[in-house]
Amino acid sequence: MVVIGAGFAGLQCARRLAGEPVDVLVLDRENHHLFTPLLYQVASALLNPSDIANPVRRIFQNAGNVRVRMAEVEGVDFAGRRVALADGTSIPYDRVVVACGSRTNWFGMDGMASAALPLKNLPDALALRNHVLACFEAAAFRDPTERAALMRFVVVGGGPTGVEYAGALSELIRRPVRRDFPDLDIDRARVVLIEAGPSLLTGFPAELGDYARRELERRGVEVLLETPVVGGDEREVRLGSEARIETRTIVWTAGVRPARLVDAMAVPKTDGGRIEVDERLRIVGVADAFAAGDAAAARSRGGTPLPMMAPPAMQAGRHAADNVLRDLRGEPLRGFAYRDKGTMATIGRSAAVAAIGRVRLKGFPGWILWLALHLFYLIGFRNRLAVLLEWTWDYLRWDRPIRLITRARGDPAAPRVG
Amino acid sequence: MVVIGAGFAGLQCARRLAGEPVDVLVLDRENHHLFTPLLYQVASALLNPSDIANPVRRIFQNAGNVRVRMAEVEGVDFAGRRVALADGTSIPYDRVVVACGSRTNWFGMDGMASAALPLKNLPDALALRNHVLACFEAAAFRDPTERAALMRFVVVGGGPTGVEYAGALSELIRRPVRRDFPDLDIDRARVVLIEAGPSLLTGFPAELGDYARRELERRGVEVLLETPVVGGDEREVRLGSEARIETRTIVWTAGVRPARLVDAMAVPKTDGGRIEVDERLRIVGVADAFAAGDAAAARSRGGTPLPMMAPPAMQAGRHAADNVLRDLRGEPLRGFAYRDKGTMATIGRSAAVAAIGRVRLKGFPGWILWLALHLFYLIGFRNRLAVLLEWTWDYLRWDRPIRLITRARGDPAAPRVG
Repeated sequence: MVVIGAGFAGLQCARRLAGEPVDVLVLDRENHHLFTPLLYQVASALLNPSDIANPVRRIFQNAGNVRVRMAEVEGVDFAGRRVALADGTSIPYDRVVVACGSRTNWFGMDGMASAALPLKNLPDALALRNHVLACFEAAAFRDPTERAALMRFVVVGGGPTGVEYAGALSELIRRPVRRDFPDLDIDRARVVLIEAGPSLLTGFPAELGDYARRELERRGVEVLLETPVVGGDEREVRLGSEARIETRTIVWTAGVRPARLVDAMAVPKTDGGRIEVDERLRIVGVADAFAAGDAAAARSRGGTPLPMMAPPAMQAGRHAADNVLRDLRGEPLRGFAYRDKGTMATIGRSAAVAAIGRVRLKGFPGWILWLALHLFYLIGFRNRLAVLLEWTWDYLRWDRPIRLITRARGDPAAPRVG
Repeated sequence: MVVIGAGFAGLQCARRLAGEPVDVLVLDRENHHLFTPLLYQVASALLNPSDIANPVRRIFQNAGNVRVRMAEVEGVDFAGRRVALADGTSIPYDRVVVACGSRTNWFGMDGMASAALPLKNLPDALALRNHVLACFEAAAFRDPTERAALMRFVVVGGGPTGVEYAGALSELIRRPVRRDFPDLDIDRARVVLIEAGPSLLTGFPAELGDYARRELERRGVEVLLETPVVGGDEREVRLGSEARIETRTIVWTAGVRPARLVDAMAVPKTDGGRIEVDERLRIVGVADAFAAGDAAAARSRGGTPLPMMAPPAMQAGRHAADNVLRDLRGEPLRGFAYRDKGTMATIGRSAAVAAIGRVRLKGFPGWILWLALHLFYLIGFRNRLAVLLEWTWDYLRWDRPIRLITRARGDPAAPRVG
C-alpha cells in the first residue's frame, strides 16, 4: 500500500503500520518530516532547521516493511489504482492513504502572494529569518521614513502561528537585535498583529484569547482586532477600513488550504476544498482509498470537519492505518472519533495558554506544559536534546543565536531589502 | 578606518583594534564570519550551519569602537580614499585593510565551473549535502548504469579540504546512508579522490601524505595520484590520460584565487593575482592601505608568498592592525614574520595528521589534537559547545544526523538529480 505524505497524518499512519504484515511505501516530496509547531522558532532565529526536521528514511530505519521514496506526486488514478509521479512514472497500489497536507491560503490576493512571507514550511521559515535580519541591516543606512518602514513588521492572522511568531519576533527584536544594532533606535521597531475576527486564538476559550492579547501588548506587540486585510504589496498592507500600514514585511499566517494535489482529484470535496471522507476515513465514492490530515475533512461522530491542525491529523492518520489493517484481516472498519486533548499556544518567555478539557492554564504553568508537550511530541531523542539545550540557552541568556542571513547557492544578490 | 572582509584576516584585524582609540568599520557581504575549516562537516551532514557561522555584529557587541555593515564592496578608490559599495554609495576612510579573501579557482574550465560543486562557502556546503543525498534518493529508482554513476563521487584536489571531505563522505555513506537506504547496495558506492601531484597533502611532510592516502584507502576511498583533471561536465570527469570517470558528482577543491574585488584593483599583483604587499603589509605603491589574508601575498621575512590558509591570514590580520595602531601613534611600522605553528588535516574517525615543528602526529593522537585545536579556534562558547556535542554524538552513534535535503524558497523543483 502507498501513503502519500510524511506530515503528521502520513507519518503516524506509516508508524502504526510498521511491523505489521503489510508492505508500505511512503511518498513525500521532501526527504524529511517537519515538526511544524516549532517552525516559528526557526523563523525567529532560535532553532536550527535540523532540530525540527527528521529524515523520513531515518525514522523508518528499523521498519523492514516500510519503504520511503522522495517523490512529487502528480495525481492519483483511483480507478486504475496507481499513483502518478512528476517524473512520469507511476506506482500501483492495493490501498492508498492520501495525507498530502496543506499549503498557504492567499484567499485570492495575488499581490499578497508575491509580496508577503508565509510560514508553512522550512524554506518559508529561513526566508523569513533572513528577511527580518536583512531589514535591520538595511535600516541602519536608510532615511528615517524608509527606516521606519523597514522596522515595522506586520503579522496577518491571529491564530496560534500568528500569535506565536509575533511574540517570538518581539523577543528577538527587544534583546538580541538591540544588542547587535547599537546604530539603530530599536525602541522604534514595531510588531503589528492583525486579526479579522473579534479576538485572538479563535477556537480557544475567550479568556485565553484575551490573555494572549494582553500579554502580547505588554511585550510591545500592537494587536489590531476586527481588522480585515484586503490587500498588500512590497510597500504596504491595506486594511478593510481604507487604512494602510507602510511596511517592508508582511508575514502571512491567515490560513491554509489543501495541497495542490487535492485540487486535481476528481473526488467529492468540501467548500474549503478538503476531500470528503466517510466516518471510517474512506474517500467518498472511491474504493480502497483513505484520506487523513489537512487534505481531508474528517468529522468526529458526524460533526463539522475537524480543524486543520496537527492533533486531528495524527489521530486520523493512526485511525486510517488501523482501518487498513482491519480491512486486510477482513474485519469491519471502525468509525473515527476524535479525542480532543486540548489546544495550546505560546506567547513568549514564561507565557502560554492551554485549554485541556475544562482546565485552563495560562502564564508560567501553561508555558511549562507547552514546553514539555512539544518536547514529548518531537521525534527522536537527538532533536529533543538539541531543542532542550537551545531553549535553556535562550532562557538563561535571552539569546536567539541563529541570527544568520543565509543565501542559496547561485544567488549573488543580498536579500531583497539589502 | 575600514576593514574590508570579516574572514579570518579581517576578523582578527578588527578584534585586535577593538577597544583601541580608533573608529573601525567592518564591511562584509555576509552578516556572519564563517569558520571554513569545518565547512566540510556541514557538507557531510554532521554540523549545522550555525555551528560554524557567527553573526559579525554579535562578535563585536561589546566593542564600542567597531561598527559592522553588511555590504558588497565594488571597488576601492585608493587615491580618493573611498570604498565604493554595490548600492552606489561610497564610504571615506583614512586607512583601509583589504581582507576580502578568495573564491574557487576553476583554472579556466568553464564546463567544470557549471557542473562541479565547490566547497568554499556555506551555500556551497549545503548544496553539496543536498546533492549527495539526492543522488542516493534517485539511485534507488534508476537503471543499473545510471545508479552506478549516481553512487560514484569524485573529489578533485588532494589538499586538506579534499582529503577531509573525501574521508567524511566515506563515513557518511558507509554507516548512516547504508542504514537509510536498505533498497540500495551501498557497497557499490565509490568515493574517488583525484590529485594532480605525486602525493596527497602537498606541503605536509611526505610520510603524512602517505599515511593519509593509506588511511583513506583503508576507509574505501580510491586515491588517484599524478592524475590531472582536464575537464568535466554533468556526465563525467575527464582525466589527462584520456580516461573518463562517469559520475553525477564532481566536488571541486582544487584551488582558490583572490576575490573578484581584487581583480578590479589597479595595484601590483603576483602571478596568482594576489595583492603585492611590502613586509609591513602595506599595499605596494598605495598610501594608507594594508592587505592581509588570501587576497594579499604576504611574505614572511621576504620569502615566497604564504599559503592561502587560515593561520597566515589570522596572523597577518593581527599584524596589519598592530601596524595601523603604530601608524596612528607615529611609531615606525614593523615587518611581518609568520610564526608557523604547524599544519594538520583530519582523515576521519580516530585519524588525522599533524606536523608541528619537528613533531609529527598521526592516527588517534593527531585526531585528538585536531579536535582540540579546532574547538579552541571556533568562535564563541555556544558554538564550541554545539560542535562538541555533535562530535560526541557522531562518535558514540556513528551518526551524521543532519541528512536533510533543503530547498530554497521559491524553488519548486527537487535537486537537479531528483
